[in-house]
Amino acid sequence: MNPAERKRIYLDHASAMPVDPRVAEFAGWFLTKDFGNPSSLHSVGNAAKKALEDARRKVAELIHAESPECIIFTSGATEANNLAIKGCALRNQSKGKKIICSAIEHMSVINPMKELQKGGFEFSTIPVDSTGLVRLNALEQMIAKDTVLTSVMYANNEIGTVQPIMAVADAVHEKGGILHVDAIAAEGRLPIDVQKEGIDLFALSSNDIYGPPGAGALYVKPGVKIQGIMPGGGQEKGLRSGTENLFAIAGMGEAARIAKLEMEKESARLQRIRDSTISKILKIDGSRLTGHYKRRLPHHASFVFSGIEGESILLNMDMFYNVQISTGSACSSKTLEPSHVLLAIGLRHEEAHGSMVMTLGESSNEDDVPEIVLAVEETVARLRKMSPVR
Amino acid sequence: MNPAERKRIYLDHASAMPVDPRVAEFAGWFLTKDFGNPSSLHSVGNAAKKALEDARRKVAELIHAESPECIIFTSGATEANNLAIKGCALRNQSKGKKIICSAIEHMSVINPMKELQKGGFEFSTIPVDSTGLVRLNALEQMIAKDTVLTSVMYANNEIGTVQPIMAVADAVHEKGGILHVDAIAAEGRLPIDVQKEGIDLFALSSNDIYGPPGAGALYVKPGVKIQGIMPGGGQEKGLRSGTENLFAIAGMGEAARIAKLEMEKESARLQRIRDSTISKILKIDGSRLTGHYKRRLPHHASFVFSGIEGESILLNMDMFYNVQISTGSACSSKTLEPSHVLLAIGLRHEEAHGSMVMTLGESSNEDDVPEIVLAVEETVARLRKMSPVR
Repeated sequence: MNPAERKRIYLDHASAMPVDPRVAEFAGWFLTKDFGNPSSLHSVGNAAKKALEDARRKVAELIHAESPECIIFTSGATEANNLAIKGCALRNQSKGKKIICSAIEHMSVINPMKELQKGGFEFSTIPVDSTGLVRLNALEQMIAKDTVLTSVMYANNEIGTVQPIMAVADAVHEKGGILHVDAIAAEGRLPIDVQKEGIDLFALSSNDIYGPPGAGALYVKPGVKIQGIMPGGGQEKGLRSGTENLFAIAGMGEAARIAKLEMEKESARLQRIRDSTISKILKIDGSRLTGHYKRRLPHHASFVFSGIEGESILLNMDMFYNVQISTGSACSSKTLEPSHVLLAIGLRHEEAHGSMVMTLGESSNEDDVPEIVLAVEETVARLRKMSPVR
Repeated sequence: MNPAERKRIYLDHASAMPVDPRVAEFAGWFLTKDFGNPSSLHSVGNAAKKALEDARRKVAELIHAESPECIIFTSGATEANNLAIKGCALRNQSKGKKIICSAIEHMSVINPMKELQKGGFEFSTIPVDSTGLVRLNALEQMIAKDTVLTSVMYANNEIGTVQPIMAVADAVHEKGGILHVDAIAAEGRLPIDVQKEGIDLFALSSNDIYGPPGAGALYVKPGVKIQGIMPGGGQEKGLRSGTENLFAIAGMGEAARIAKLEMEKESARLQRIRDSTISKILKIDGSRLTGHYKRRLPHHASFVFSGIEGESILLNMDMFYNVQISTGSACSSKTLEPSHVLLAIGLRHEEAHGSMVMTLGESSNEDDVPEIVLAVEETVARLRKMSPVR
């Protein structure tokens, strides 16, 4: 078949997601009709303010926050992580200057910590085991009374592993520390209860639950103090200045409402497709699943194939089969460095270039599995024939 | 007439603007169709990357930048100002620790400077005259060899005064300094040429040219060095991490293209409405124009009325006439402090609460002028009758 005629099979939802048409319709109203500035005192501003608070309530409900007031809207995931990490560490530095995160965090967690390190904080990373789970013993030994902030992601975007957040929270709180959790890979896929799980700060993104790009949120547990990192007009209780992006925020709220309603059924559906895909791909000679087999995101499948590179798989799958996958995080895919996540779970340097990551979503279909598997089989066979290593 | 039946006359475009329907249609494509992540290496990512670069070119063309590479996209105006000020001062602090801005800058310029001041920079403000023009003599005396950054807005959002940016640039460059210009109030209304006018850093926002909220841009002149303030995945040449908000950015590009084409005619149209409104409102007893009479934004009219408060005018005009105006900056309208802009142009403390700001836009119409003027006349008369001062 001519590749251009093939149906697109998009398996890269972790990199970008289409906006749910219901969300686009709901939020579109705020682009052209109720387009006001929530800080304006007149009726147009009041309508905007109401929409903003409505969205805050819906996001709070998705994660079982104590109240809507715990939600601070940002421009997206990266800013939510920056606000959590820099805002918390700087605000609470009188307690101590140690900050730690797992070795497999997203760069939007690691790099703000490195920035703090340049400013005098002591930064270290918690090792993970070969499945990507944080080593709780190591964590317990590392956390000290002067550890002001610990950051462990809910689930990893490259290998799909879901962390034991409650156990992590216990270890952190025993030393009086604050726990930040990057939820981006897991939100809308797994039921999350920030209160039960002992989460102090929790970063969310709109697009990762089929909301419009341009909104994110940080949950801040009542009593936890942070400071803003974007001074200006003083919106969002002074923690995030800048006129609120009402379109994206209202859309994020609606996406959160829909996710809460539909998550259980949709995650079960995706998990069936995932399991079928994983079991078939693992039959390919020299294939290996990365991450945890059981403690895994329901829409996530990730592999390495001996002797071939992830980037070659990606380009071949796209060009010849119109199947879009990822090789690690899209955010750093244009660098030529091996994945820090794959190195952390113990893969060798040459293996850490070889990852194929599939993230399923609304367009994914059980009927597509044979075509996906065939595309992988043929691609792997073709690349191995060309590879000088074998 | 029952106020609810009155036609809405929205005169608060500086606070929020509707998205141009042509822009919404153009950008909407990227919400549901070409929704990719520009950093993804596959075809969906490539389409997104192309749209991103297309937007960069259109924004560069609007302001006559040297090349599209001079444009760094951000989440909005506040972040663009934060990036310019903190990113420039921190990156170039070996040259000196003095930073200055005009006394009437937006809070998204003043507050980042105050944050730098806490970190050891010396911050001072340039006085303005009674029309809001920066005092060039004072500026020349203040700028020293160790003044690393000077920030003067292109035009003021509360009083409409347009600054002599070329003269400011000359003064700054004579001492080897860097000039940042906040363009938000002027962009899309006045023809701007960053090269001819000697601008080094220039902050833009999408919504202020009828683009979607959630995008802004910073022009960085070739050779001017700044550092990022949002560490993460390293997008936008490492200066702004976070997956690009393609919807808002593509929309901003399209809005810039339309603004370049239509600005001259539209600004002339708005200026006629503005002049007619100003001349009629100035006939009201005890009314005064704030800002400069001639060096004024074409869509901007602002007044004070002796003995009454701006907030009361705003609420009355909205409730009884369905006319939306502003009283200073929407960003700080909910604080009870007098406007720092009105204080800087020499108004007394009680007068600095009394401003009425009208900003015209696409929905504004010459035919509405009599109704606008009548609403102001009746409102002012009513409030004066109630006022205990008179």
